[in-house]
This record gives sequence, structure tokens and C-alpha cells, in this order.
Amino acid sequence: MSPSTRSGSLLVGQSGGPTAVINQSLVGVVEAARARDEVTRVIGARRGIAGVLEDDLVDLSAEDPALLERVANTPCAALGSVRKKPTPEECARALERMAAHDVRWFCYIGGNDTSETAHLLGEAAERAGYELGLVHVPKTIDNDLEVTDHCPGFGSAARFVAQAVMGDNLDNRALGGVKIDVIMGRHAGWLTAASLLAKRFDDDGPHLVYPPEVEIDPTLFEQQVVAAYREYGRCVVAVSEGIRAPAGRTWYESDDVDAHGNMTLSGSGALGDVLADHAKRALAADGVAKPRVRADTFGYLQRGFVGCTSEVDAAEAREVGRRAVGFALDGDAPGTVVIERVNDAPYTVEYRLAPLEAVAGRTRLLPERYLAGPGRIDPSFCDYARPLAGDLPDVARLAEHPLGR
Amino acid sequence: MSPSTRSGSLLVGQSGGPTAVINQSLVGVVEAARARDEVTRVIGARRGIAGVLEDDLVDLSAEDPALLERVANTPCAALGSVRKKPTPEECARALERMAAHDVRWFCYIGGNDTSETAHLLGEAAERAGYELGLVHVPKTIDNDLEVTDHCPGFGSAARFVAQAVMGDNLDNRALGGVKIDVIMGRHAGWLTAASLLAKRFDDDGPHLVYPPEVEIDPTLFEQQVVAAYREYGRCVVAVSEGIRAPAGRTWYESDDVDAHGNMTLSGSGALGDVLADHAKRALAADGVAKPRVRADTFGYLQRGFVGCTSEVDAAEAREVGRRAVGFALDGDAPGTVVIERVNDAPYTVEYRLAPLEAVAGRTRLLPERYLAGPGRIDPSFCDYARPLAGDLPDVARLAEHPLGR
Repeated sequence: MSPSTRSGSLLVGQSGGPTAVINQSLVGVVEAARARDEVTRVIGARRGIAGVLEDDLVDLSAEDPALLERVANTPCAALGSVRKKPTPEECARALERMAAHDVRWFCYIGGNDTSETAHLLGEAAERAGYELGLVHVPKTIDNDLEVTDHCPGFGSAARFVAQAVMGDNLDNRALGGVKIDVIMGRHAGWLTAASLLAKRFDDDGPHLVYPPEVEIDPTLFEQQVVAAYREYGRCVVAVSEGIRAPAGRTWYESDDVDAHGNMTLSGSGALGDVLADHAKRALAADGVAKPRVRADTFGYLQRGFVGCTSEVDAAEAREVGRRAVGFALDGDAPGTVVIERVNDAPYTVEYRLAPLEAVAGRTRLLPERYLAGPGRIDPSFCDYARPLAGDLPDVARLAEHPLGR
Repeated sequence: MSPSTRSGSLLVGQSGGPTAVINQSLVGVVEAARARDEVTRVIGARRGIAGVLEDDLVDLSAEDPALLERVANTPCAALGSVRKKPTPEECARALERMAAHDVRWFCYIGGNDTSETAHLLGEAAERAGYELGLVHVPKTIDNDLEVTDHCPGFGSAARFVAQAVMGDNLDNRALGGVKIDVIMGRHAGWLTAASLLAKRFDDDGPHLVYPPEVEIDPTLFEQQVVAAYREYGRCVVAVSEGIRAPAGRTWYESDDVDAHGNMTLSGSGALGDVLADHAKRALAADGVAKPRVRADTFGYLQRGFVGCTSEVDAAEAREVGRRAVGFALDGDAPGTVVIERVNDAPYTVEYRLAPLEAVAGRTRLLPERYLAGPGRIDPSFCDYARPLAGDLPDVARLAEHPLGR
């Protein structure tokens, strides 16, 4: 049967951590699916694969377009989300439920773990002879999916981090001391590196940037903080929550492990406090009396803050959703939608489908060219990240003409 | 000598924690002072009273107006800030340095502690027979100054908190569990109460709000979290960093004490972790398997985040600076500029000068009418806070039509 002669329902779900633009992709899927004659109904699974297994489904064909547009501009999974890796039995059960609703196509919006779930489902469908047009629609603030130039969700999170560190740099410039910002990123430092976008003046922070890709010895960390403090009279530090010590262990480990075996690193201020203690001790040992050291963990604000969305990110997330429907219906599935950058300036991209195996369960780290040694990210990273985060708010300094006496 | 016949320099400084609009007040002072013939020069003290003592001064008469406008829109003290309570000797020394620069008027921008410093300086000037037109220009995200309806800086911080909790509510609705947000406010719960502005739907968070004004027993906290979790299937909690247990102690105490005797509560995630542990234990005891509990401490992002400014707050901060110059020059000083609300809708205010003694070193708590029992803030608080934070971004939910089978 050729793809164009099939008809049936298209299922869409959302999975994993929210992003500011994850509903742009949802609405992109819904509007593109509605425009196709082959799609008799657009079904939404509440809480991703969990909703499929529990028959917790909604009819998205009936949603009002004006409301959908408002939902597109609302952060965090409107259908609800889940962190669930299905067992083989659950994959079989999910396919059974899909068949009961005449589902021919499934667009699953999510990150690495979701692409793994999609891959498992796709393999189960193939084994069962179930013709399912399965497309993974990428989203993740971590930007750690393989193959693609970047992931929808990253640009807005990068924008949040940049605006937050801009403010922290101004705060630290006004009051002095050391400020440590703990930024999301368990294995990959893309979001932590985005703190570099905050710099306007040469002496602006972040003065030190620690992604998880580069092992950092606590003693070297202390030395670098003291050196920066001596140079600038203050210091702003951006640190990935996944910062690693040479022994191969994180600086801080929690007992909490999620369904995919990941440790819980955000939602706690413990790492920031550990780092602040190191900085305090080092500065005190260097002769700084009562060193003012503060740490903030940006936590969940990075991924859901309302009112800090990158326009480019929003537009791309929408387009990725639309394209997913085309890839699903026009016979290229299964796969994952990837973004290819054609130009930095003017910034232009193209979309294509890549095999699920290329991304499922994999993590894309910051490439070597951006890693400029412990505490340093190469400034060329900003050429990569700037178009994704968009133009940032203006900040200015007084000229500070010395007073004539 | 009548005020209008005096001429000389006007000194301006910034002190205490930064706000998003503290430079609006600075620029308001500078532009109003430049427009007055009596002011021969506008001098900026770097790091407030510290710059006066160290003769670290800049000539603000020479600043370019276009640059000043950009500085006005930049968060965090452009002149640098300080937390310093001067000794009697330092007050005398400061007056000596002011006299050397022919300073006749001093506008000091800051919060409670700054008003106390201004009061000390004013008393010293009176004792010394130094005719100093001294005006305290209010700013504080905590909104805890007496007499005034509200403080410049609060509206933008309230806006940040509202946008952050809106996102957290969406995140929590998508993934479930308990989310605890620790918000600035050592003694007063104004900013924590502003989290209520995040609510759009009846079942939206924050579901529980704990300002420092109401003692809360850890056991009652646990019971309320469990009850909210049962009612909503999830729970968002907004907690002041100064949350108090009945014994009169905070839930968490740090050894750090600043120059004004205040404990350091932000810049650490410890309180959030303590509260999360309580919630986890209580939910587990109530039969919730592996309860998902996360805590974020908003920390310094609340006061300096770039790109989240309330327009009303910015305009009022500017006007407070302008008015301060008039009060200083036209003979009403010393005093502090207060904002009087004339109307809620349409929102209108008036400005007047109040005695420094009325605000110096005092703290205005949330009034009884907004305290609706443990964990509750009366919704009428939103009528007070909404005009200050401004219109918030739109968020929407899917209609979620059940699937016809």
C-alpha cells in the first residue's frame, strides 16, 4: 500500500522535561496533521506513552485554532509529560491500544530518552508487522541530541541563562564577591556554555565556565577562582550541575535516580553550596577577609520560565512539529527530525529526517573546538549560540568621568 | 538663607541590594538635578557611603543623556553598591568630604538599612550645623519600607516571581509531584505573596504560600503538603526564605551575618533542601511511592534578572528619583520619598516626603488582612500587587475534549 492511500488517526504525545517551546511543536503537529486528508483524527496522549497505555487520550481535532495558538505560546507540555521507558510487554500493549484507535502515525515529542522509547516502539511495531509512521520530534533544553545542529528548546533556555547571568554579572559588579551559578546539564555543557552570551564588556562575567566535558580538580577550581578574583576584584562562575572531578565522580551525588537511571541533580542546592564552600575557603586562605560568596542553582526556572522565549526557537519548534507530520505520512518514517544549519549569517536552516538509531539513548557533548581548557569556553561558541537565543536586552555602564577636583 | 538662593553640588549614591529599576532612580536624580540652576555639579559616589569616605567619586554632569537612558534600563546599581552602616566617626568624615566638594544636597538610593544610614548622616549634619538637603530615595525588592504604599523595585521582582511560578506551575502540572520555591524575604512576605499573581485557573499553583509573618510548625507544613497533593494530584509551594517555626527560630540558620546584623538566607539552597525532605517524608508516610519533590531557591535572579522589568515600576522609580531632587532643593528635606496610592483602577499614585525616622531601620510586614491562616494569602493581595507587576504573559490550556470511542 503506498503511503498516500492510507488513512487513519495520527497520535501525538509529549515526554521528558518541559521546554518553553514544546507546545509549539505540539501545535505544529496538530495543524499539519489537520491539513492532511489522510488523517481522519488527531489524537493526543496525555502524559506520553503512559496515556497510550492507560487509554488517557484526547481528541485534538476538536481544539479551537485560536486556543491552540495560545497554547503554542505557553511553556511546558500541555498534554502532560512522563519519564517512562516501556518494557517489551508495554510496547506490545501500546501498539494494541494504538490499533484500537486506528493509529497509523505517531509523533512523539521529547529528548534522548523519548527517542529511545520511540525506537523501542518502532522495533516492536516492525516485529508485529504494524505499519506505524513513527517520528520523534526533538526537544531538549540540554541540546544534547546527536546529528542535529541544535534542539528546539535549547535556544529559549540559553536565552534564560544569558539573561540571568547578565543580571548576576551586574549584581556582582555592584556588590563584589564571588557568585556561582549552577546550570542544568548532566553530561553536556551546551547550556552552561550559553552563559558566555551574557558578556558585553571584556571584564564581564562569567569569568569561569565549567561544563561537564572537562574534568576539574577541586584544587584547580579554587586556584582559578582566586586568580579571577585577583584580576577582576570579583568573580562570576557558571558551572554545569554535572561538573566532574578527575576520579570520574561528580562533585556531589544524590541518591535519587529516575526511571532512565539518571541522577537527580537539579531541584537541590547542594552542589552550589559545596562549590561556594570551596571558593570561601580558597579566598580566605588567600587573605580575603569574610569573602562574600553566593551560589544560585537556576533549577527548573531554566526550562519553564514564562516570558523568556527565543523567537527563533519558537518558530523552529513549530516547524519541526509540522515537518514531522510530513515525514510520518510521506513514507520516510521511522526517524527523528533534525535541523541542519545552512548559514550563520543570515541564519538559515533546513530540516530532514535521520534514523532513530542515530540519536536513541545517545548524548552529544560539546565538541573539542569549544573546550578551551579548564574553566574556559572558546568565544566562537557565541557564534553558534547567538542566533538560537536571539537578540538579548541592552545593558549599559556609566562612562564614569572622574571628578575634577 | 532661603533654599532657592543656595547653590552647590548634588551628590547621589546607591546602597544595599540591587533591583531591576535602581538605575531609573539614579537617572531620575541626575536629570532633575541637571535641570536645576542651583545645582552646579552632579556627583556620583561609587559604592555609596564607601565612595564618599574614600573620595571615589564621578562627575555625572558629564554623562551623555542617551547613555544615561540606556543605564536607566539596566538592572543593578550602576554606581556600585555597598552594605555599610557608618560609625559616628565615619559620619563626620563623610560630611568633611562632602564639604570639600561643596555638596549641598545628597540623594541616597536604598532600602531600610540605607534609610538608617541617611538618618545617621542627617543627625550628624544637624549636630555639625552642616546645611545638607538629605533625601532617601527608596528601593527594595522586599517592599518592606514603612509609610509608603510600595517600594520601587518590588513591582519588577514581583513580576519575576510571578513569571517564574507560572512556569513552575506548568512544569509541575506536566510532570506531577511537589515543587517548592524559596523566595526572598527575610522578615516580610510581600514577594512570596506575589507568587499568587501566577494563578490563572482555580487549580493552579501556588497551592500553599508561607510568608515569614505566620509561624508554621513543620508538622502542619507536612500535613498541608499532603492535603494539597491529595486534592490536586500535585503541589506547588511558595515559601519565604525567612519562614519561621513556632519556637521563634527560622527553619534553617546560617552563620553568615552581614554588616547590619542580618543573616545570609539567599545564595544557598539549604532551606529548600530541608523543606523538600519534610515533604518527601510526609508523602512517603502517606503512601506515595518515590514521591517526586524538588526545591528551587530563586536567589539573586529575583533582583537583577535582565529583561523582566515592570513598566509601572520603572516609571515610578524614575519619578521617585526626580521628585527626590525637588524635595532636597525646595527645603522639605531631610526625608524619604513615599508613594501614595490614590486609586487601584485606574491605578494612580502621588509622591510626598515622609520623615526619615518613620522608615529608618523599620520593617513593614504584610498586614493582617492578607494573612488568611497558615499556608494561605488572601486573594485580595492580587488587587494590591497586580498594578505594580504589570500585565503578565498569557498562558493557556488545551480544552482536552475526551476522545470519542
